[in-house]
Amino acid sequence: MSAELVTGIAELTTITEQGVLHDAALVIADGRIAWIGPAAHAPAADSRTDLAGRAVLPGWVDAHTHLVFGGDRSAEFAARMAGGAYAAGGIASTVSATREATTEDLLRRAQELRAEAEAQGTTWVEAKTGYGLDVEHERRTAEVAAVVADEVTFLGAHLVPPGTSMRDYVDLVTGPMLAAVAPLCTAVDVFCERGAFDEEAAREVLAAGARAGLRAKVHANQLGPGPGVRLGVELGALSVDHCNHLDDADVDAIAGSTTVATLLPAADLCTRQPLAPARRLLDAGVTVALATNCNPGSSFTTSMPFAVATAVLQMGMSVEEAVRAATLGGATALGRHEGHDGLGTVAVGRRADLHALDAPSAAHLAYRPGVPLTHAVWRRGVRVR
Amino acid sequence: MSAELVTGIAELTTITEQGVLHDAALVIADGRIAWIGPAAHAPAADSRTDLAGRAVLPGWVDAHTHLVFGGDRSAEFAARMAGGAYAAGGIASTVSATREATTEDLLRRAQELRAEAEAQGTTWVEAKTGYGLDVEHERRTAEVAAVVADEVTFLGAHLVPPGTSMRDYVDLVTGPMLAAVAPLCTAVDVFCERGAFDEEAAREVLAAGARAGLRAKVHANQLGPGPGVRLGVELGALSVDHCNHLDDADVDAIAGSTTVATLLPAADLCTRQPLAPARRLLDAGVTVALATNCNPGSSFTTSMPFAVATAVLQMGMSVEEAVRAATLGGATALGRHEGHDGLGTVAVGRRADLHALDAPSAAHLAYRPGVPLTHAVWRRGVRVR
Ligand SMILES: [Zn+2]
Ligand SMILES: [Zn+2]
Repeated sequence: MSAELVTGIAELTTITEQGVLHDAALVIADGRIAWIGPAAHAPAADSRTDLAGRAVLPGWVDAHTHLVFGGDRSAEFAARMAGGAYAAGGIASTVSATREATTEDLLRRAQELRAEAEAQGTTWVEAKTGYGLDVEHERRTAEVAAVVADEVTFLGAHLVPPGTSMRDYVDLVTGPMLAAVAPLCTAVDVFCERGAFDEEAAREVLAAGARAGLRAKVHANQLGPGPGVRLGVELGALSVDHCNHLDDADVDAIAGSTTVATLLPAADLCTRQPLAPARRLLDAGVTVALATNCNPGSSFTTSMPFAVATAVLQMGMSVEEAVRAATLGGATALGRHEGHDGLGTVAVGRRADLHALDAPSAAHLAYRPGVPLTHAVWRRGVRVR
Repeated sequence: MSAELVTGIAELTTITEQGVLHDAALVIADGRIAWIGPAAHAPAADSRTDLAGRAVLPGWVDAHTHLVFGGDRSAEFAARMAGGAYAAGGIASTVSATREATTEDLLRRAQELRAEAEAQGTTWVEAKTGYGLDVEHERRTAEVAAVVADEVTFLGAHLVPPGTSMRDYVDLVTGPMLAAVAPLCTAVDVFCERGAFDEEAAREVLAAGARAGLRAKVHANQLGPGPGVRLGVELGALSVDHCNHLDDADVDAIAGSTTVATLLPAADLCTRQPLAPARRLLDAGVTVALATNCNPGSSFTTSMPFAVATAVLQMGMSVEEAVRAATLGGATALGRHEGHDGLGTVAVGRRADLHALDAPSAAHLAYRPGVPLTHAVWRRGVRVR
C-alpha cells in the first residue's frame, strides 16, 4: 500500500500523551500511522488528502452492541414513552423473532447497522449473542456476528427462556452452549439483574467462560442496585456495563481494579433510567467507556456521537473525557488498548482507524448536538466514508 | 410542473384530522399535494417515486433560529461544560464578530446552516436579527436573513449594547432601527430577561413593532422567572419562547390564549437549564412548538430531529405530540398554520413540503436517537434531498 498524507487537520486528538495537536498532518502507510506532526513539516507521500481545517480523532470503538437480531420493538418503545416501564422480559420477543428470521436476514440487517455506525465514525464494533438462547440459535448468532462485527461476546445468559428453570438453563449455557459458541468469541457476558441471573448463576457462567478462555463482562446494576458490579470486579472482568445504580462500595470496587465501567447513555434515556454517574466514577479514578448498546429493545441506536454529546451535555463529562471514553475507553473495555494492535489512539505504529469531522474541533460533537458531523472515516488506513 | 406519484409510504403522518395513514401514497402537482390515499388506489402520474416502506411526515418548521452571525463561541461552550454558567452577555462577543464579518461571509455561513437543516428535513426556517444592534448592522443582518430564511424576525432588542443606556437603546430600536429593518420582517421579538430587557422596555419594543405591522414574539422565562410570558400573552404574541421557568399563573395565561409556547430543548441542554415543562403545558391545553434556536452561543444546532428525540425521551411528550410541535406547532408560532399557504400539515391543496425517513415510522425519530434518518426532502414539491 502506498503512503497517504492527510493534511489540513485543524485539531488532531491523539488521546495519548500528546493530547491535542493543532495545524497537524499525518501519514498513513500499510494501514498504520507512519508519521504525525506539524503540517509545516509534513513529508512527501504518494497521495494527499487536504481536510481543509477539519478535526481528526480516533475512530469510535463501540464496545457494547447487540447487533444481531430479528423483529422490531418500536411498539414496545412507544408504549414505554407513553408511561410503561422497561422490563427485561421484552427480550423474549426479540428471541422469538431472531429464531424465526433467516440467516440471510439476520446478516443483512446487522450489516446495515454496521454500515450506519461506520457512517458516524465507528471503526471497531463488539457484538454480543443473546437472542438465540438455545445451542443452535446462539451458535448461528455468533456466526453472523463474527462476520459483521470485529469481535463477538457470548451472552447466552441474557435471559432465562420462559418455561425453563434457572438451574437447567445455567447448565445448558455453561455446558453445550458454551462449547458450541466459545470458539467464535473473545468474551463472556451475563445479565446479572433482578428478573435475569442472580449472583450465584452469574458467577457460574463467568467461571465456565473463563475455563473456555473467555474474558468476563457483566451487564450490571442497570435497573436497580445489585451484586453485578462487585462480582465483575472480583472476577477481573474487562468491564461492568450500565452501572446506573451504584453505592459507594461499588464505586470503590471498580476504582480499585482494572475493570472498565462501560456507560450506555442512549439506553439510559430510552429506558428512562437515571443517567449513569459518570462524574462520580471519573472522580474516583475509574476508566470509563461510552458505547451504544445498540439493540432493538432498550437502545436502538448506532450513534456514538449521540453518546458523546449526551455524556458532555448531561453527565458532567468534559469533551476530552467523553472522546477518550468513546475511543480508548472502549478499547480498554475490550482489552485492546495496548501493544502493536492497540485501538483507540492515534499514534505512530498504531492502526489508522481515523474519523474526520465536518468541524474544526472535537468539542463540536457536543456544541452541535444532533448535527451529523462525520466527514471521512478510515479503517486500517482505507478510506471507507 | 408535472405530477409526481409518491408511493411505498409505510406510514404517512398528516398531523390533521386524518392522523396517521398506513400503506399510503400521495401525488404532488404544481408544488402542492394533489391527492392522498391508500396506495392501492393511487392514480397515474407523470413520474413515480417508490419509498419502499418508509415513513413520510411534513417537513419541519423551525420557528426560532438566529442563523446570521459571525465568529465562533466553542471556547465559551467548552468553559460552560467545565462548570461555567450561561450568561446573556456572551451575545456581545457574537455582535462584535458579526459587525466585523463581510456580508459575503455572513451569507455563506447562513446558507451552510440552512443547507444543513434541510438535510435533516427542515423545509421552513424563521431567522432573527439581533447580532447587529445598530441600524446599519441590524439592517444588513435582516437583508442576509431575508435571502437565506423564509421569514425574518426583528430582534434588535436582543441585548443592550455595552456602553449604551437602556433608555437610549430602546429609543433607537423603536425608532430608526425599526424603520430600517421592519420592511424586511414579519415579526418583532425581545429578550425579556434579567440582564437584558425589563418588562417596560419589552412592552415599548413590542408596541412599536405592532405599529409597524409586526406580530410579537418574546424570549421569555429562560434563565429565571419573569414577566415575559405574561407580557407576551397580554399583547397577543404569536409565541413565547424558552419557557423554562413558569409558575402556575404563567401556564394559565398561555393556556387561555392563542399564543404558542415554543420550546428549545437543545438550548436547555447546552445551557444546563431545566428542560422546559412540556408535559405541564400540553396538559393545560397549550399549543407547543419545538424549534432549534440555532445560534452560536446557547444552541449551535440545526437539528430538528434532535429536538424531537429529546422531547420524547426526556420531556414526556409522545411521538405524535413532538412531531406535531415540530411541524404544525412551528407553523402556528409563525401564524402560518391556516389557509391555502398554511404550513406544517400534509393535506390536499397544501404546499408539498415533505420529509421521508429511512425508517418505517415517525416513532423511529426517538426510538433511534442520534441516527441520521432523513431519506428525502421535498420543498414546494421539488425534491431537494
Ligand atoms: Zn447490553
Ligand atoms: Zn433565541
